[in-house]
Amino acid sequence: MRIRNIKSAKDIIDSSNIMIKDYLNHKGSYKEFFGNDNSIELEIGMGKGSFLLQKALNNPNINYIGIEKYSSIIARAIQKIENYNLNNIKIINCDAKDIDKIFYKEIDKIYLNFSDPWPKKRHARRRLTSEEFLKLYDNIFRKEKVIELKSDSDVLFESSIISLTNYGYAIEDISLDLNNKDMINYKTEYEIKFIEKGIKIKYLKALK
Amino acid sequence: MRIRNIKSAKDIIDSSNIMIKDYLNHKGSYKEFFGNDNSIELEIGMGKGSFLLQKALNNPNINYIGIEKYSSIIARAIQKIENYNLNNIKIINCDAKDIDKIFYKEIDKIYLNFSDPWPKKRHARRRLTSEEFLKLYDNIFRKEKVIELKSDSDVLFESSIISLTNYGYAIEDISLDLNNKDMINYKTEYEIKFIEKGIKIKYLKALK
Repeated sequence: MRIRNIKSAKDIIDSSNIMIKDYLNHKGSYKEFFGNDNSIELEIGMGKGSFLLQKALNNPNINYIGIEKYSSIIARAIQKIENYNLNNIKIINCDAKDIDKIFYKEIDKIYLNFSDPWPKKRHARRRLTSEEFLKLYDNIFRKEKVIELKSDSDVLFESSIISLTNYGYAIEDISLDLNNKDMINYKTEYEIKFIEKGIKIKYLKALK
Repeated sequence: MRIRNIKSAKDIIDSSNIMIKDYLNHKGSYKEFFGNDNSIELEIGMGKGSFLLQKALNNPNINYIGIEKYSSIIARAIQKIENYNLNNIKIINCDAKDIDKIFYKEIDKIYLNFSDPWPKKRHARRRLTSEEFLKLYDNIFRKEKVIELKSDSDVLFESSIISLTNYGYAIEDISLDLNNKDMINYKTEYEIKFIEKGIKIKYLKALK
């Protein structure tokens, strides 16, 4: 995706209290950061934030953190989320590769929505469900490891099932056509476009 | 599927040496039955036998047994297979539910091709990848448990992934569109019809 640079992205980010700026200082103590004992769920690659915002609005007793590496996209997410007065949604501007430097045994669920499929075999390690990333996630999950994934990409979906199940995850739920599944589903911006084009959304929930 | 009754089905079956008629007498000793130490692979629901015949022709050092409960379909399979002079393909006329009465620790791989999806939830136990069946398979596998499955049905494919991975199988290989996968694939009669209709064939290989 081409990322339009928003002139004031830096200003928006700098002045927003939705951002966690000193994110390296809270490792292992994010419950204290939120000031409650609620579970903490993470979206890696939150994009413009539609999914996480809907989650936060509908689940006030769960804390949500979105991770995103592109600041111009984060600026858009902030503008959307700031319309609401929510204490249970925060954003970190960082790379997924650094996730184990930020969290330690405190995450209850990870959401991967329309992650980059890296379709070429030589880039397989960059997929967010590669063994390399699953190892990182091991250290940030509090107890039970739960990953929910949505994708339009067959390649990513297939390789995720192989990677997850060979790493000890069982598939708890799965759909090859999420739009026709009887389940609460907060759609992302991407997802709506894909459905309009007739592309089927694949979904899975993995547990370890 | 409506099964046309072939007048002489019984005669064809009775007179064919492809059939294993005394199949209850060889439990645990099918290697002796075949007279060699080759591995033994099983197709449950072999239908008209195209898949297993192609397997047997191309892998002379593997023994194949097809199981099928409808005798009129078996008669068709026999007519097809008898055109070749093969010692490594045999048929048993029985119900999959009785599989653990027939084999004991001697099967190296199970093929499930276009099995009845039993799409209604209340019939889920009848699916050949339900926990009930996976338990039966435990007793017939020699060592490593390998199941290869092909299906046109999303319901069966999804429920198979859930059932298999929760029973300890890992997914070794998977495709949501087998016809476009770079892999040797012997098509069944059903499969050719589905592909002609534009229906995508789902494939997986599970290992425990």
